Amino acid sequence: MKYTDDSLTLHTDLYQINMAETYWADNIHERRAVFDLYFRKLPFGNGYAVFAGLERVIEFIQNFKFTESDIQYLSEIGYKDDFLDYLKAIKFTGSIKAMQEGEVVFGNEPLIRVEAPLAEAQLIETALLNIVNYQTLIATKASRIKHIDMDKTYMEFGTRRAQELDAAIWGTRAAFIGGFQATSNVRAGKLFGIPVAGTHAHSMVQAYQDEYTAFKKYAERHKNCVFLVDTYDTLRSGVPNAIKVAKELGDTINFLGVRLDSGDLAYLSKETRKMLDDAGFPEAKIYASNDLDESTISSLKSQGAMIDVYGVGTKLITAFDQPALGAVYKIVAIENEHGEMEDTIKISGNPEKVTTPGIKKVYRIINRINHRSEGDYITLECEDPNQEDRIKMFHPVHTYISKFVTDFEAINLHHDIFENGELVYNPPSLLAIQSYVEEQLELLWAEYKRTINPEEYPVDLSTKTWENKMKKIEEVKTKVKK
Amino acid sequence: MKYTDDSLTLHTDLYQINMAETYWADNIHERRAVFDLYFRKLPFGNGYAVFAGLERVIEFIQNFKFTESDIQYLSEIGYKDDFLDYLKAIKFTGSIKAMQEGEVVFGNEPLIRVEAPLAEAQLIETALLNIVNYQTLIATKASRIKHIDMDKTYMEFGTRRAQELDAAIWGTRAAFIGGFQATSNVRAGKLFGIPVAGTHAHSMVQAYQDEYTAFKKYAERHKNCVFLVDTYDTLRSGVPNAIKVAKELGDTINFLGVRLDSGDLAYLSKETRKMLDDAGFPEAKIYASNDLDESTISSLKSQGAMIDVYGVGTKLITAFDQPALGAVYKIVAIENEHGEMEDTIKISGNPEKVTTPGIKKVYRIINRINHRSEGDYITLECEDPNQEDRIKMFHPVHTYISKFVTDFEAINLHHDIFENGELVYNPPSLLAIQSYVEEQLELLWAEYKRTINPEEYPVDLSTKTWENKMKKIEEVKTKVKK
Repeated sequence: MKYTDDSLTLHTDLYQINMAETYWADNIHERRAVFDLYFRKLPFGNGYAVFAGLERVIEFIQNFKFTESDIQYLSEIGYKDDFLDYLKAIKFTGSIKAMQEGEVVFGNEPLIRVEAPLAEAQLIETALLNIVNYQTLIATKASRIKHIDMDKTYMEFGTRRAQELDAAIWGTRAAFIGGFQATSNVRAGKLFGIPVAGTHAHSMVQAYQDEYTAFKKYAERHKNCVFLVDTYDTLRSGVPNAIKVAKELGDTINFLGVRLDSGDLAYLSKETRKMLDDAGFPEAKIYASNDLDESTISSLKSQGAMIDVYGVGTKLITAFDQPALGAVYKIVAIENEHGEMEDTIKISGNPEKVTTPGIKKVYRIINRINHRSEGDYITLECEDPNQEDRIKMFHPVHTYISKFVTDFEAINLHHDIFENGELVYNPPSLLAIQSYVEEQLELLWAEYKRTINPEEYPVDLSTKTWENKMKKIEEVKTKVKK
Repeated sequence: MKYTDDSLTLHTDLYQINMAETYWADNIHERRAVFDLYFRKLPFGNGYAVFAGLERVIEFIQNFKFTESDIQYLSEIGYKDDFLDYLKAIKFTGSIKAMQEGEVVFGNEPLIRVEAPLAEAQLIETALLNIVNYQTLIATKASRIKHIDMDKTYMEFGTRRAQELDAAIWGTRAAFIGGFQATSNVRAGKLFGIPVAGTHAHSMVQAYQDEYTAFKKYAERHKNCVFLVDTYDTLRSGVPNAIKVAKELGDTINFLGVRLDSGDLAYLSKETRKMLDDAGFPEAKIYASNDLDESTISSLKSQGAMIDVYGVGTKLITAFDQPALGAVYKIVAIENEHGEMEDTIKISGNPEKVTTPGIKKVYRIINRINHRSEGDYITLECEDPNQEDRIKMFHPVHTYISKFVTDFEAINLHHDIFENGELVYNPPSLLAIQSYVEEQLELLWAEYKRTINPEEYPVDLSTKTWENKMKKIEEVKTKVKK
């Protein structure tokens, strides 16, 4: 990089800066605005998503400052000094509420709510979306894969196929949040404390031009051994050589097992299991990898494959079958010239793209009898469902689908992260985040969690929120007609 | 980040470090080894790929050094001091040959050839693959999209959906290499000199709660105006308001055009074109965006859509329909105990995964009569096709598909990048790289370049290379049988 003072503050779309300039020139840049960050549709046909990205968002906000070279560049592309003087001094002074990392989340509920001076709220949009979209996608994918067979161990092996370096690092952190137990990426281990895993590759066998020698040389230096057995021929060469070395070195090593990386994993794992058992290594585990995902793992499970540890690469780290989550960041309220907050709406020909106006909260409605969730309930800021004996929950589009819920606890899912620019949040450890996901999933009926065709979890609007939305739609329609 | 001396040197898979340790403990870590980096299969069903990533690879190699905190971490996870002393002092001392960025490339040809002490060659593998896989994928996708309609202008708008921050930055650089003309990402503009583009979002219209006011306020501060016209109703509100502001402000602004971001782009663009023309703005352009890719752009073209500029986001920056390129890094030769280089091979049950042993070069065979390429021709290091009057080119699997080529020029596609650890390459400018792609594509018959079902471009082995491979396969088979 040619700049010593490179910052991520310019990691934004040009139009954000142009809008900030418009607001600044019109002297409305300090008006309070509220933006919701949310996705509309769950990825992969899954019944839930796992929110991730908050740590990186916090880091971004804390370092939000245009450096000298940033300002210099903006000057070169034509921004004028008066506006640049404003940008030079800018820092984030707003408030942010967000779900905690690892929260189980659904479509159309605000994952992050930013309340800030209009220009500031706009300038941080792109980076927030970039971070949350990717990390939430991968945490969700990891949880989906792991829930195929919770008894297995899952390792993230995708760095070489990740979409550039940040994706490898933050993707494997997200995979850990979703339930994976280890990563091959050493830098991720260092930065996040994730356990690292891996032994050797085919190239080591080739470097020695002899599998037995390669395994032996490896074992002489490394106590914990997993041998990769498919460089030449898994059952005729690889497994026998692994067993030979394990027998010869005996207690001087921990023969953890063998790794299969090609061929028919169902068949090979069963044959390998027999060979290991017959040789007196019933504790040795079978690791498998090779373009695995939830559907191949599900198939291996149903075939009775004898695999203990799954190494998942490409399909997880790129979220191969749906490599983007479509989270958006929409303005829902803005201070008017009299200092009052006014709700705003965006209408669209696509009904699902109409925004929900107003400053809102998200509650999870827990049934006190069975301790399961009845659904999520979005209210206006002024509402508190815990003050009510009974709430009406209804589908925000097909409103005839409705129920009355009593004897519930409404849990506010938003945490205070920044207040007037100050960080007020103390993030839990990564391990605590990982456990939290499973605790939250316990609150969900199994029907919402199955991989294929899950039931749709209710994300409902309170009556006040819904009526407010209908009113704003009418207002805009009337205005456009004129 | 909690480390002030964070480096990318740990951006590797754990097994690379374990293998390096094995080699070091066995004192073979300094033996020369040759690795080829290549992909097997072209992405997206495309007929060619565009190589990208070399700049980042060079940067990585130049900064390849374990920092204090890296060594500290490795010590914490159990590596011993003797080996860590070796790592502390390590830098890259090998030689690297590579295609130049923007080279038009194909399956099974070495894009990068690393010749280095075994341990060093191994330690850099993961990062090289991570970088080249992603950047080549995106450069290829961009070229594929642009070639649907070369007369249009293409802008990269995907940052918010990119897989984390690096992907946004390096992906938009790759998109520029592939032929895109601008990006919305300001930091990419700063770092790489790519033209930046963008005006305003829906949120600006909502912030003013009035489209006309929003457009006018924007135009009062910005000379160059593209108005986003679909916040409320494109044809009834957006376009009329854009025209109204353009007329009122007249020559004080450059009314560049309007942007459509939802709805039926074919229909809306035609109606918008009429409205702009009727209002006296035949020069105003129509920008369009909304989940575009090569197939939607192709469809819009065939419908006669009146779109001048395409903004492409998600589908490009994530390579949505195939978000990973499967490049691998395989050892092809290793120095033996007598100081001689020996070829190595990896056999696999999957025939396409068998490696091609030996130190190799890649030539593009240009027909001197018609100035088109006859195909690529992989030779052993000792061969020089330019010394021959006639070469036999044959399919490396279906060998009956063969031809003799005369009156050709063989162009060596490998450039010297590093020699004994020293950078010896002076990279061309990004604009020169972009032009180079189109020049190279001119050498290809149209049949290789169509988007759907292109002809397979020949990537052939010289007779010597092919015979060497067959000999090594036999050697391994004999060995496994024993």
